[in-house]
Amino acid sequence: MAGKIITISRQFGSGGRTVGKLVSEKLGIPLYDKELVEKVALESGFVPQFVEENGEHAPGKTFLSYAFAPQGVPGVMNGMSTADFLWAIQCRAILQIAEQGPCVIVGRNSDYVLKDRADCLHAFIHADLAFRADRIVRLYGESEKSPEARLQEKDKRRSVNYQHYTGRTWGASENYDICLNTARIGIEAAADIIASLAKS
Amino acid sequence: MAGKIITISRQFGSGGRTVGKLVSEKLGIPLYDKELVEKVALESGFVPQFVEENGEHAPGKTFLSYAFAPQGVPGVMNGMSTADFLWAIQCRAILQIAEQGPCVIVGRNSDYVLKDRADCLHAFIHADLAFRADRIVRLYGESEKSPEARLQEKDKRRSVNYQHYTGRTWGASENYDICLNTARIGIEAAADIIASLAKS
Repeated sequence: MAGKIITISRQFGSGGRTVGKLVSEKLGIPLYDKELVEKVALESGFVPQFVEENGEHAPGKTFLSYAFAPQGVPGVMNGMSTADFLWAIQCRAILQIAEQGPCVIVGRNSDYVLKDRADCLHAFIHADLAFRADRIVRLYGESEKSPEARLQEKDKRRSVNYQHYTGRTWGASENYDICLNTARIGIEAAADIIASLAKS
Repeated sequence: MAGKIITISRQFGSGGRTVGKLVSEKLGIPLYDKELVEKVALESGFVPQFVEENGEHAPGKTFLSYAFAPQGVPGVMNGMSTADFLWAIQCRAILQIAEQGPCVIVGRNSDYVLKDRADCLHAFIHADLAFRADRIVRLYGESEKSPEARLQEKDKRRSVNYQHYTGRTWGASENYDICLNTARIGIEAAADIIASLAKS
C-alpha cells in the first residue's frame, strides 16, 4: 500500500485534528484541515465560517446561505440546494488536492470521496465520551449546553451528513483502513501508527 | 494502558484468527481460540462442534442441541433457551480465562464480556469482500454457495448474535480500541501493530 494520501475522519473532541497535524509533520507533507475549508470557501463564494459549520453537517436545515454568499451564488448553483452545492464544491476540492500528491486531509467525508484511489490510507479517530467531554471543555471552554450534549449533537450532524451523501454508516470500521481510540491509545501514539503505516 | 488481555473480533475470512495466533506468539502469551470452544464444550456438556457453530451465531433458530448434549442438559439449563445457556457458559469461561492473566482471546463477543476491565486491548479485524472471498476458498475450499454468499451469511449471523447479546453494533469502531483492514495493511503488519500496542 502506497498510503501517500491520508484521510483522517474523526469524532468531535477525539483529537483527530491533532493526529492529522502530527502525521503531516512526521511525514513532511501538507495538511488540509482549515486549508481545505478556505479552498472550498474561495471556490464556492461562501465565507469560511459557513463552510466550516455546514460542510460536514446534516443537510435539510434552513441555511442562511444567501446572506453569506457575496457573489449572487444562487445563479451559480444551477438549481442545486445549498447543501448539495457545498458538497459538490467540497468533493471537487478534495479530488484536486489529492491530484497534487501526498497530503493529510482532515474530515469532510474525504474517505468516501477518495475511496477509489489505491494510494490512500483512510483513518477514523474516536474516543470515549468522557475523554472527549473533558477535552472540548479544555480546548473550547464551557457553554450553556453540557459537553456531552455538544458532542452528541455534533456527532449526530456529522453522521447524518455522511449517511446522506455517501450511503454509508459513519464510524463503521469497514469504511476505513484503521480506526483508533485515542482515549486508550493516546493521540501521539495514534499519529505514530498512522505515519508508520503510510511509510510502509 | 496495560493491554495484557487482547480480544480479537473478526469478520469471517479476514485473517483475524491468524492475527490472534501471531500476536500470542509475539508476546509469548496463551491463545484462546479453539481452546475457548473446548472449555465451553466441557463446561456446557455440548460437543465442541455445536459450540463452534452456535456460540457466535444468531439465536432463535431451531437448535438440535439435545441431540448433542450427553448429560441431560435440559435439567441443567434451568429453563434457559439453549442459546442463552451457551451465552452464559461462554461469558463465564471468558471471565475465568481473563482472571488467569495475559492472553489472546479470539471472537465469542469477548470484547463486550471484558469491556469493564481496564487491562484489555480490544481489536477488530476486517477486510474487503474480495480479499476474504479469495482467502476462504484457499483455506476451506469451494462449496455449493458462492464465497460471497458464505461470507455474508456468516457475517450476518455473527452480527445478529452480537446485537442480541450486547445491544451494540458489530464492527462499529467505537466498540474497539483498534480496527484494522488486513486487505490493505496485511495480516503480519496488523499483528505487529497490536502486539506493539499491548507492550506499550
